[in-house]
Parts: sequence; C-alpha cells; structure tokens
Amino acid sequence: MPRVSVTRRVHFSAAHRIHRPDWSDDRNQEVFGDCSNPQWHGHNYEMDVTVEGEIDPETGYVMDLKELKDLVQNRVLADVDHRNLNTQVPWLKDTNPTTENFIVAIWERLREHLPERVALRRLVLWETPRNYVEYEGL
Amino acid sequence: MPRVSVTRRVHFSAAHRIHRPDWSDDRNQEVFGDCSNPQWHGHNYEMDVTVEGEIDPETGYVMDLKELKDLVQNRVLADVDHRNLNTQVPWLKDTNPTTENFIVAIWERLREHLPERVALRRLVLWETPRNYVEYEGL
Amino acid sequence: MPRVSVTRRVHFSAAHRIHRPDWSDDRNQEVFGDCSNPQWHGHNYEMDVTVEGEIDPETGYVMDLKELKDLVQNRVLADVDHRNLNTQVPWLKDTNPTTENFIVAIWERLREHLPERVALRRLVLWETPRNYVEYEGL
Amino acid sequence: MPRVSVTRRVHFSAAHRIHRPDWSDDRNQEVFGDCSNPQWHGHNYEMDVTVEGEIDPETGYVMDLKELKDLVQNRVLADVDHRNLNTQVPWLKDTNPTTENFIVAIWERLREHLPERVALRRLVLWETPRNYVEYEGL
Amino acid sequence: MPRVSVTRRVHFSAAHRIHRPDWSDDRNQEVFGDCSNPQWHGHNYEMDVTVEGEIDPETGYVMDLKELKDLVQNRVLADVDHRNLNTQVPWLKDTNPTTENFIVAIWERLREHLPERVALRRLVLWETPRNYVEYEGL
Amino acid sequence: MPRVSVTRRVHFSAAHRIHRPDWSDDRNQEVFGDCSNPQWHGHNYEMDVTVEGEIDPETGYVMDLKELKDLVQNRVLADVDHRNLNTQVPWLKDTNPTTENFIVAIWERLREHLPERVALRRLVLWETPRNYVEYEGL
Repeated sequence: MPRVSVTRRVHFSAAHRIHRPDWSDDRNQEVFGDCSNPQWHGHNYEMDVTVEGEIDPETGYVMDLKELKDLVQNRVLADVDHRNLNTQVPWLKDTNPTTENFIVAIWERLREHLPERVALRRLVLWETPRNYVEYEGL
Repeated sequence: MPRVSVTRRVHFSAAHRIHRPDWSDDRNQEVFGDCSNPQWHGHNYEMDVTVEGEIDPETGYVMDLKELKDLVQNRVLADVDHRNLNTQVPWLKDTNPTTENFIVAIWERLREHLPERVALRRLVLWETPRNYVEYEGL
Repeated sequence: MPRVSVTRRVHFSAAHRIHRPDWSDDRNQEVFGDCSNPQWHGHNYEMDVTVEGEIDPETGYVMDLKELKDLVQNRVLADVDHRNLNTQVPWLKDTNPTTENFIVAIWERLREHLPERVALRRLVLWETPRNYVEYEGL
Repeated sequence: MPRVSVTRRVHFSAAHRIHRPDWSDDRNQEVFGDCSNPQWHGHNYEMDVTVEGEIDPETGYVMDLKELKDLVQNRVLADVDHRNLNTQVPWLKDTNPTTENFIVAIWERLREHLPERVALRRLVLWETPRNYVEYEGL
Repeated sequence: MPRVSVTRRVHFSAAHRIHRPDWSDDRNQEVFGDCSNPQWHGHNYEMDVTVEGEIDPETGYVMDLKELKDLVQNRVLADVDHRNLNTQVPWLKDTNPTTENFIVAIWERLREHLPERVALRRLVLWETPRNYVEYEGL
Repeated sequence: MPRVSVTRRVHFSAAHRIHRPDWSDDRNQEVFGDCSNPQWHGHNYEMDVTVEGEIDPETGYVMDLKELKDLVQNRVLADVDHRNLNTQVPWLKDTNPTTENFIVAIWERLREHLPERVALRRLVLWETPRNYVEYEGL
C-alpha cells in the first residue's frame, strides 16, 4: 500500500526570551542579544505537523485531519497559545525556549499520542517568516 | 555530476465530495461530516511537482520547466481543472477523492511520462492553505 | 477621535457554477465556459471583512475581533462553508453566484448586524490567489 | 503631475498584553480574555507604511524607499522590535497596546518626520496573518 | 446598481536599472546606488489590475476576468516579460524605469482599452515582496 | 542528542540570461527561448539555507541564525544582489546561470565556511513563486 504524508498547519502566538537563569544578565545579553530582553518579546508561530502512514482502504485517509488538529490543539496549542514559554508551560520548565529546544519538546508531546496506524514524521516550526526549524525525531 | 531537484508549482480548482457509494448517506455523513455534502464542495488546489536528475551539461537544466509544465497540464490539469473529481475524471473512477487517494492517482499519471533522464521525486498537494499531503512513490 | 479600520480575514470552501437557469446549456457554456461546468467546480475562498469606527476609549478596540469573527461565522460561513452556492444557500437563491453577486449578498448579510459603534467599510473576496473583488456598499 | 503612493513593508516582533492598569485582574480577564495574560504574549508584526506624493522629475521617485526604510527603522522599529510594548516604549506609556492604539501612536511617530514633498497616506498593521488594522490619519 | 471592483493579479520578470542617461555614471551611482548597476539587475514583478463598474445583470460580471487578463497580456506583459525595461520597451523609451514611472506608463497602456462599462480604478505594482507602488490616475 | 535543522530564508534581486557563449544567437534562442534575451531579464530570488546539527546544550541553538545570516550575506548575497549573474560574479564565470547551476555554485560557496558543529543540509532556491530547485550536495 502507498505510504502518504499528511500535514496540518497550525498557528499560535506566545511570549518568550532566550535566557539561561544560571547565567548573569550580562552573559545572557552578550550571547543572546535582544532575544534575551528581560521584559520579553514574542512571535506568531506557524507549525506544520506531518504524520505518515498507509492509506486506510476504508476511508481513503491516512488520518482524519480533524483528529490531528484536535490532538495538536489539546497537547500543544492549549498550553502555549497566548502564553509565556519561559514561565507558564509545565513541559518547558527548565528549558531555554530556543526554537530548537521548543520543537523537540513539542515532538515529545505528540509522538506517543497518535493513533497506532500513523507515525509522526516531521515538525516544521516557523518563529518568523524568515526563520524556521525542522525535526524528524531521533 | 550533482543531482538537483526541480519543482513546478501548479494551480487548479475542482469540486468533490468525500464519499463511498457503497455506504448509506448516514454512514458517509457520520464518517466524513461536511466533507461528504451530497451537493459537493470544492477547493483551489496547489501542487508542487518535483523531478530529480543530473544537470544536463549541454543546457544546464535538469529538465526544461516549460516541458514539465506542459506535461502536468496535459496529463493532469486538463482533466481536473474546473471538473468534478467524483464524476468527471476517468482515472479517478471508483476512487474516493480524498487528498491521499488523489495524490497517488496523480503520481501514476505522471511517473512514466517523464523524460528518461529524470525521476519523479515528490508531489505535494495542498487542499487548503492549512492542509497538504506529500507522496514520494512506493 | 481617530477612526481606524479593523479587518478579520476568514476562509471557506464551496462548490458553485456560473450559470443562468433561464439560458440553454449551450448558451451558458458559450458565455461562461468551464466556469459553467454542469457537474460544478469549487474554490477555497478568502475574505477580508473590514469595519471602521472610533477607538472605544474604554477598551482601546474599535471592535473586539472575536465578536467580528463570530458574526461572520454565524451570518455567512455557517451557510456557505462546504456548501453548494447554487443550491444550498437560501440567501443566494435565484442569484448567479459570480464573485461579484456573491460579495454584494454577503454585504447584505452583515451590514445591519454590526454593533452601532462601527460601520461595515469594505469586503474583499478572493476566489483564487489571482482573482478578487472588493465592495464598499452603495 | 501624477501622484503615486509608495509603500515599504517592515517586520518586527514584540511582547504585549491588552490590559488596563486601573482595572482589576478579573475585569481585565473578563473583557480581554487570554490577550490580557499577565505573563504576556507576543506577535510578529508586519506593517505597510505608505507615503504619497508627486513623482520627482529629477529622480523618478516619489521618495527613495531606502530613506523611508531608515526613517521607519529609527522612529519606530528601533523602539519596538524585541521589546515589551507595555513597559519599554516611552511613546506607548499609559497606552493600552491594542493594535488600534498602537497604529495611531506609530502614525504620530512618523507623520512630521517625512520630507516635505510627501504625505503619510496610510498605515496597515498586521498583528497576525488573519487580523490587521488600517489608519489614514484624522 | 452596486458598483464592484474586480482585480486580476499578474506576474512578470524583467531587467532594468535606475539610470538617467544625461547624468554621469558617478552621479547615477551617487543618487541611485546599486539600483543603477550598469550591468543591470531585475525583478519578479507582481501587479494587481483593478477595474470598477456596475454588475452586468445579464452575466453577473463587472467584467469577464479572462478578458481583463488577455488585455493586460496584450497591452503590457507581451512587451515587458523577460525584457529589459530600459532598452526594449517602446513605450518606456526615454523613461527612467523607477516603479513610480513604470506604473504611470502601464496605466496609460490600459486605461483607454477597457470596455466602456468599466473604469480602470487602481494599479498596484510590487517590485519586491517588501516594496510596492499604487496609482489611481490623475 | 537530537539533531535539528535550522533555516534562514534570504532574498536578493539579480539580472541574468540563460546563454551559452559558444552557441550562436539562433541556437540560444531556439533552446532557451525568451530566457536567453540578449538584453537580459531578472528575478527576485528567495533562498532557504538549511544547516543541521545537534543542539548545543550551552546555548540551546544548533547555530546562531544571525551568524548564518551574516555568512550567507558575505559569501553569497554581497556578490549577487543587484548584480548580473553572467558578467559580474567571479564564482559564476564560465557558468550558464540556470537555477540548477546557480544552486550548486552557491553550495560550494557555503559548505566549507560553516562552523564545525553543523553541516550544510539543503538549499532551496526560488527563481519565481512557481519555480524552485533544491540541492543537498553530492
């Protein structure tokens, strides 16, 4: 059977700062520049969540995209949309919320909650229209 | 010689419904929801057709994109643009036109009609700006 | 007080055909071409709904965009998303659903249902990424 | 002489919350919902800055876009990019940073600093890809 | 009858330089910088052509967009696509091809060639995704 | 440690023609059509530069995107932006500047200049919004 990848693109807005609490303010400023502004900044994030699997001969779907949308809503967006990534997201606690660390944490939130028939194949996370990261798991 | 992938993005509009004729209307509605509306709905589809090959040292092209555009026009768009995917496309007959089934059928329309020098590498098919599928063959 | 325009962009998918029932099939085909395909075609529509008013000094809003979104959802999208514009939308009955006729009908659905403080200023309706219409009322 | 409008589109990222300090937290939450999250959220803003004037017969420009870009950089972006709109921008002090109030404040930052030959005609400010405001002055 | 604006977005690629032949190379370089590179540079232009008129009660169209597309193709794109704006376009002869001068010249190419029922209302011409000009006639 | 891909999207404008100097003008015209216009044409190019590596546990970055941006600026954009690809770029000398040849040449400009911790994974180069090429190295 053909294996097809299916993607849902989602959107959210959040505040953050790139910051290590175990470093001095000067050290944070020196390494991370304006991204470490103590009064925060924020972004409109766009994320492509891609799952892969065989087409279910009964429905013609790899996975119902409404189901995928709901899963991402419940496991990720409900926790991060209009939130502060440094202080308000339990599963980012003790994580410096660079886009790289963030995408790996989102991967962990999603990968074991998909239906058995599909695998999480790829995440793409845009922090701005010019910068994005991709992760395909270990 | 370096192998490069070359993509042409194309656009078309079509009507469809997600529907199994061997199921009752109630069953279709239950599984597919509004996507199974008996009076149809439709989409502006965008599709990226990607071929891969070595650069031809004579022309500097992997494949002339005008040729690729014409091939996609003749083998796919001429049949589906401003058409009903359930009732008017011979090569979709007996296919429930989910995006997954549709992309596999398009792959079959294209793969043996490319020049020998290149291989069909990937199709990406957007049904909406938020949903898309990818296929890279068996 | 400064007057500001506020816009919410919305998305829906629908089937239609450009068609006059009082004309023969041949006449429809001659004037409207493929857009009159009797088996329908469809689009992903994008629409910008713009209201204008003074900034409310209490909230700093011209209009809460959530309220505008809900209004457009209830008065327009609930009737047209995943529907057939020719056969399933009561307020388009007896209307040839060109983008021009459609935008005027949407205007009438919205303009008397806005809060008193704001006026409907402009609608922009994209039928494809290359074609759109604008309407600002009589 | 023909009058032409010339636009530069710029980008910045900032944190904010919709919040009235003279209201209780409960009242802020009730009226502004998640947008009033005390731990902030943020956005990638896009802004179109449009000036209008006659074409200078010497240069063929209404205004050198590099000059316009520098002006917007110095008068606006340097103060707001990677900043907190509620706490770090002197010219937004005592302003509830809704998009409506923000665009009017930006207008005031720019309008008297343009070369005499051109007038500030319009600002468009996107807070998200689905929400934007426009202002054309008093 | 309602008046509606109808827009067709078109695309072309061209070479140019910002340059006054009656100025020295040094003077051109000083005023126009890299845009005056004697070996040319180029752009993908996008243009929105907007016409306005009453909806034709017979067709439901303000203007058949295919007709508008053909007109723009014949009067503008055929002359400028894959051409050098300084040396190969008869109707730009003796014009310094800034975006401002270019849009006024395009306006003149189109305005008297539209059907009587509609008026040319607005042109928008993007030179890059960040810079555009608008013209609405004298 | 998780390996993540990080991308910076950049923009530039250039003139070129598809042309082999060892062929006659007629032969060039026959094979390359308008793309071989002797008076040049040009494009707004967009390019995604993707590097891959482990997340640095100290910074949470795979690579500081500012560093990547500066590298691409110095090694590529400074040479090609507002330039003629056929005549003004030393590292494209004797290269027919098709998008395929261009992307391979850019790859060579970048791959040995990245920090040791990361590898150049992929380039994507858009010549128009409808045509792009990808290269992942030999």
